[in-house]
Amino acid sequence: MQIPFIEPIANPELANRLQAAIDNKTKPLGSLGKLETLARQIGLIQQTTDVQITRPAMVIYAADHGVTAEKISLYPACVTRQMVENFLAGGAASSVLARQHGFEVHIVDGGVDHDFAPRPDLIDCKVRHGSRNFVHEPAMTRAECELAMQRAMAVVAGLCGNVVAFGEKGIGNTTPSAALMHLMTDIPLAQCVGAGTGLSAAGISHKQQVIERALARHGRPPDPLDIMACYGGIEIAMMAAGMLQAAALRKVVLIDGFIATSALLVALRLQPALLDYCVFSHCSDEHGHARMLSFLGVEPLLHLNLRLGEATGCALALPYVRAAVNFLREMATFQSAAVSEATP
Amino acid sequence: MQIPFIEPIANPELANRLQAAIDNKTKPLGSLGKLETLARQIGLIQQTTDVQITRPAMVIYAADHGVTAEKISLYPACVTRQMVENFLAGGAASSVLARQHGFEVHIVDGGVDHDFAPRPDLIDCKVRHGSRNFVHEPAMTRAECELAMQRAMAVVAGLCGNVVAFGEKGIGNTTPSAALMHLMTDIPLAQCVGAGTGLSAAGISHKQQVIERALARHGRPPDPLDIMACYGGIEIAMMAAGMLQAAALRKVVLIDGFIATSALLVALRLQPALLDYCVFSHCSDEHGHARMLSFLGVEPLLHLNLRLGEATGCALALPYVRAAVNFLREMATFQSAAVSEATP
Repeated sequence: MQIPFIEPIANPELANRLQAAIDNKTKPLGSLGKLETLARQIGLIQQTTDVQITRPAMVIYAADHGVTAEKISLYPACVTRQMVENFLAGGAASSVLARQHGFEVHIVDGGVDHDFAPRPDLIDCKVRHGSRNFVHEPAMTRAECELAMQRAMAVVAGLCGNVVAFGEKGIGNTTPSAALMHLMTDIPLAQCVGAGTGLSAAGISHKQQVIERALARHGRPPDPLDIMACYGGIEIAMMAAGMLQAAALRKVVLIDGFIATSALLVALRLQPALLDYCVFSHCSDEHGHARMLSFLGVEPLLHLNLRLGEATGCALALPYVRAAVNFLREMATFQSAAVSEATP
Repeated sequence: MQIPFIEPIANPELANRLQAAIDNKTKPLGSLGKLETLARQIGLIQQTTDVQITRPAMVIYAADHGVTAEKISLYPACVTRQMVENFLAGGAASSVLARQHGFEVHIVDGGVDHDFAPRPDLIDCKVRHGSRNFVHEPAMTRAECELAMQRAMAVVAGLCGNVVAFGEKGIGNTTPSAALMHLMTDIPLAQCVGAGTGLSAAGISHKQQVIERALARHGRPPDPLDIMACYGGIEIAMMAAGMLQAAALRKVVLIDGFIATSALLVALRLQPALLDYCVFSHCSDEHGHARMLSFLGVEPLLHLNLRLGEATGCALALPYVRAAVNFLREMATFQSAAVSEATP
């Protein structure tokens, strides 16, 4: 499979021009905090000081997980299909937040265990009816994993806008994400496994044992894509590929919570420069996400105690991306507004 | 002066109905984190589960400070007047963010040391041409302080919407705010004094000494309004009064950073129930703000390292207030969307 090339964004000359433009706005130096950092990053991604946001897209990949047979979720697997219908009807949390913030929403069936009737607002990229139970066999074959990734990249290649938020729906998917986190970071498994939709302490312990059984069976495949195929999920592989494609097209990549970041951990092994394009929306309450973020050495924008997925954190971070662009585009300078500068 | 009565929002029966409505949305219990807390608070403020946001207003009170004669700011005092012009021209940070988020902006001249020509978009509430230098004499007389507060309340009483963001502009105003913080919380002065627009360590030390000289001269007046008159500022007194009036009218009160919170500390002494109506937008990078928030026992929504004032933090918090209302109004329930519930 061809992994798209991603160019690092570093450009000292442009970085200096961006900083000068930011510092000349009518405000104390540095006083817009993280918005200034974000404005610099967006300028470097877009290769200009004339930054702009066009048609932000939210892409939600949905798939089922064979490992739900091990009772690792509070919710029955049929909720994946039901929630896809909820997205299409506009009633899910991410539907509401996407409307509020002006996202174009793309719902992708990557591997839901259900045959949907063809419909205009559901993108059919189905690879199979859910991944396999990785306790017994790899979740996907390498070929299935690559097919999922290629289809996910094609969806992103068709987007017009320059910001993409990646979300997922897949009952049970914090279990493969915890396995991926452990294998990609070497953080002890117990620190990677969390409550998901609300497991008890006993439920969390059982979930950890399920992953330990899989690890004992399959070990550590040598290649990141083999790890994704063995322990991941169809929608997780799709998110990883979508992120790579978006960065290759120099779009801003909005990273959601635990599951999205587990996909990113794999994608970064394929193209480390992807990190330059990522905006970390929030720190999820799912145990492990804070550790993932500190492993990556990044700081998220929001701390709202979310643990919902579906790109809800991305949707809530978009106002900051817009604010970063807007202050750079619209604020007066000390000269244009005839405001006196500081006299230290 | 008549301080408006503020009714506490507690209502166990309504709180139960709000919680049931939140818990029945198609998402894991509690998974929208701080948005759920905010939805409950807004429901109790509005006394309904049918919450809504109408015409959010941003009120910015501007005034000058006699204590700038002591060289406690990096910027010359004329910047207050210049920034009022920048607000009116739409070029300030808060202008840009207010436009982005749909605020109706009200710029109030409470005590700028300049005679503006009459103009439709500047509300003339001028009490005097800046406060006095409190190192030598009280910043305001009690009568001036009360007049400022009455005029500020009249502005808020005229607002149609149900959310009000309070901001300020006044070169030098972190100095009176630090004094108010110290007198209202008994936190040692050194922990209340910060860099403001960017003072050096020597500048911060000088600023602390200036406040210490004022404290040595005036001591601790017995009454919160006397403290405000002696150590505060015209726009700070106005913010305190505006907050009281907004809460009395059961509006959501958006609290900005260090200066706004110093005004709130005084206002809470007059009507403690005001706290029920406050949404703490963000934690400012101004030294002392985090301590103020923990003194109040409240958690802010955002941590964006802002230190700009002008209600910029409030503007950036409005999407969360809207998101809290929108998820409660628009998300499907498990029944309406035919989604299976958790089976613990």
